[in-house]
Amino acid sequence: MADSPNCDMESLSPLQLFERVTEQGEKVRALKAGKAPKDEIDAAVRMLLSLKLSYKTATGQDYQAGLPPRDLMSINNGTTKEEDEDFVDPWTVQTSNAKGVDYDKLIVRFGSSKIDTDLINRIERATGQKPHRFLRRGIFFSHRDMDQILDAYENKKSFYLYTGRGPSSQAMHVGHLIPFIFTKWLQEVFDVPLVIQLTDDEKYLWKDLTTEKAYEYARENAKDIIACGFDINKTFIFSDLDYLGTSTGFYKNIVKVQKHVTFNQVKGIFGFTDSDCIGKISFPAIQAAPSFSSSFPQIFNGKENIQCLIPCAIDQDPYFRMTRDVAPRIGQPKPALMHSVFFPALQGAQTKMSASDPNSSIFLTDTPKQIKTKVRTCKT
Amino acid sequence: MADSPNCDMESLSPLQLFERVTEQGEKVRALKAGKAPKDEIDAAVRMLLSLKLSYKTATGQDYQAGLPPRDLMSINNGTTKEEDEDFVDPWTVQTSNAKGVDYDKLIVRFGSSKIDTDLINRIERATGQKPHRFLRRGIFFSHRDMDQILDAYENKKSFYLYTGRGPSSQAMHVGHLIPFIFTKWLQEVFDVPLVIQLTDDEKYLWKDLTTEKAYEYARENAKDIIACGFDINKTFIFSDLDYLGTSTGFYKNIVKVQKHVTFNQVKGIFGFTDSDCIGKISFPAIQAAPSFSSSFPQIFNGKENIQCLIPCAIDQDPYFRMTRDVAPRIGQPKPALMHSVFFPALQGAQTKMSASDPNSSIFLTDTPKQIKTKVRTCKT
Repeated sequence: MADSPNCDMESLSPLQLFERVTEQGEKVRALKAGKAPKDEIDAAVRMLLSLKLSYKTATGQDYQAGLPPRDLMSINNGTTKEEDEDFVDPWTVQTSNAKGVDYDKLIVRFGSSKIDTDLINRIERATGQKPHRFLRRGIFFSHRDMDQILDAYENKKSFYLYTGRGPSSQAMHVGHLIPFIFTKWLQEVFDVPLVIQLTDDEKYLWKDLTTEKAYEYARENAKDIIACGFDINKTFIFSDLDYLGTSTGFYKNIVKVQKHVTFNQVKGIFGFTDSDCIGKISFPAIQAAPSFSSSFPQIFNGKENIQCLIPCAIDQDPYFRMTRDVAPRIGQPKPALMHSVFFPALQGAQTKMSASDPNSSIFLTDTPKQIKTKVRTCKT
Repeated sequence: MADSPNCDMESLSPLQLFERVTEQGEKVRALKAGKAPKDEIDAAVRMLLSLKLSYKTATGQDYQAGLPPRDLMSINNGTTKEEDEDFVDPWTVQTSNAKGVDYDKLIVRFGSSKIDTDLINRIERATGQKPHRFLRRGIFFSHRDMDQILDAYENKKSFYLYTGRGPSSQAMHVGHLIPFIFTKWLQEVFDVPLVIQLTDDEKYLWKDLTTEKAYEYARENAKDIIACGFDINKTFIFSDLDYLGTSTGFYKNIVKVQKHVTFNQVKGIFGFTDSDCIGKISFPAIQAAPSFSSSFPQIFNGKENIQCLIPCAIDQDPYFRMTRDVAPRIGQPKPALMHSVFFPALQGAQTKMSASDPNSSIFLTDTPKQIKTKVRTCKT
């Protein structure tokens, strides 16, 4: 351990520094209010100033109470104009670049790793199968800890797959299929269990929907997902509204994650504000919990610590960066990830297909005639 | 509907006004960022200034971003000195008055009603039983909507009782028994179902405990509660960590409450800060949900909208003020309440007995000798 507080500070993230400054500020106020001895107050104030300096050194900005450092999800394309920034979070994907989001820059900013030829070859050797076209064509382009999954697999240690869907509409569109088609292939070649979370509670919280309607969408979407052809003996599809009330393990993991994530953290990662409802604020823990095998005692016979691999579109990564941060603190392994690019909207690659904008997407329920019209009139 | 925005504003609470100002401020920023037409921005700014004025009129204070009006739980005893204020929230009870908290002032500040002779007489008529000594002696001194409960009861409409305990230690103390002894009497004379919530998840979130330890305390405390002699055919005692994973109704009500309460609101009511974990921030919804009969489909055969009566110590009222605010917005009846005074600590009435301070309390597990020593050395 270093002697100087500033040395300690260097290993802290901007957000951790922010929280230390906030705590120290509260301590100073409490000492003053409690009329503590002057030297005690002075020492606390000196510590506060030193923490503020560390914060400024780390972030290049002055500390502002209530304004934690925003997570680096807004990516500058190398120009100085604000309009040229890519914006990627779980609810919005936006770029001014007609070619779409710059994924190489995204890897750097998110701190993930590129899926390169070496990794693809290693997957081929491990499974004895030709790599899926989504790997060969760079549709799945980024990962976290995929090497650990392969190490374990080669040592006959099993893992499981986790992916999901937010059921925001009756019908899914072709963009939604990307993770499911790829996950089906992963399940096939690795022969492992798969859990699929339908976040009907999330859609109830975010949209103008009743719980009944959100649950109905979850059921309808489950049919489309089932049609992808997963192994029926090794696949568990669940609605949160349902499963939370029937699982002895799920809520315990949710509350563990909720104990280890502060409002400042979700504010920094997801951009929540004080006007957001407490359901939104605590929801990230519900998307995190299926990353831990103890959330599914009925599948893993109560076995904890089975490694998890999450194939998903890269806009879901913020949830799992948070999950990976919490995992060691609750004694669980960090989930590994494989990230896909976004499926561009019919209007162009500046944004992704969205179920909320019917003209941007080809739905699985569209008729051949509707699809023909949409493709003919689409921009690219 | 009134034409002037200021007229509308008069019916809003300080917190609602605060949220309107915050929203309007965000709107102005968005318009400016989006380079909206000047007259549109000007109109939004005028509206913002008018809202700020309404806020100042209602609270006597200038609007400060990020600082919602604190709930009025700090009660001034009529003097101007800060040291003479009573402080009451679910975690702290503190007064400088040796006679204890001024409960008449508490009724005024909390906006509840006094349990007066008329109400006690009416309970006697309705039940045909001599009122419990805790009623006659003013131990239960305050209520909300008890008249509605009696109206319904006299019209042969049933209701149910809900009370609870936060299992923070192996043993309960005599102060904890007050609501349970009184609830047992209520169950007996009204012959109604009772649910008892053990918030082991809350204790896990607030204390340095594992989920296993919190659950063990819940089981131990349940034994002490059972010993009060409730009707075994009409009483359901549950741990949150357990019941959340086995009930089809509980989580649905929790998420409904969570959708209708903002961080600003829990900040104002409970004093949470940005450094608090998201579990604490969303917990109030978990204490709220048992106020709705649909949280217990196995007891009420899926019947919704059965009126609930909550006997509890008055420090729990903030949870249920919040619940009563949310209830109509999720189509549920507001729970009624009966509030007890605090059980004074052995050291004096400035604070209540606390399981965290063994010398303040007589525990149900203390030996006769220990009790003798504690009573002999106690101040009053």
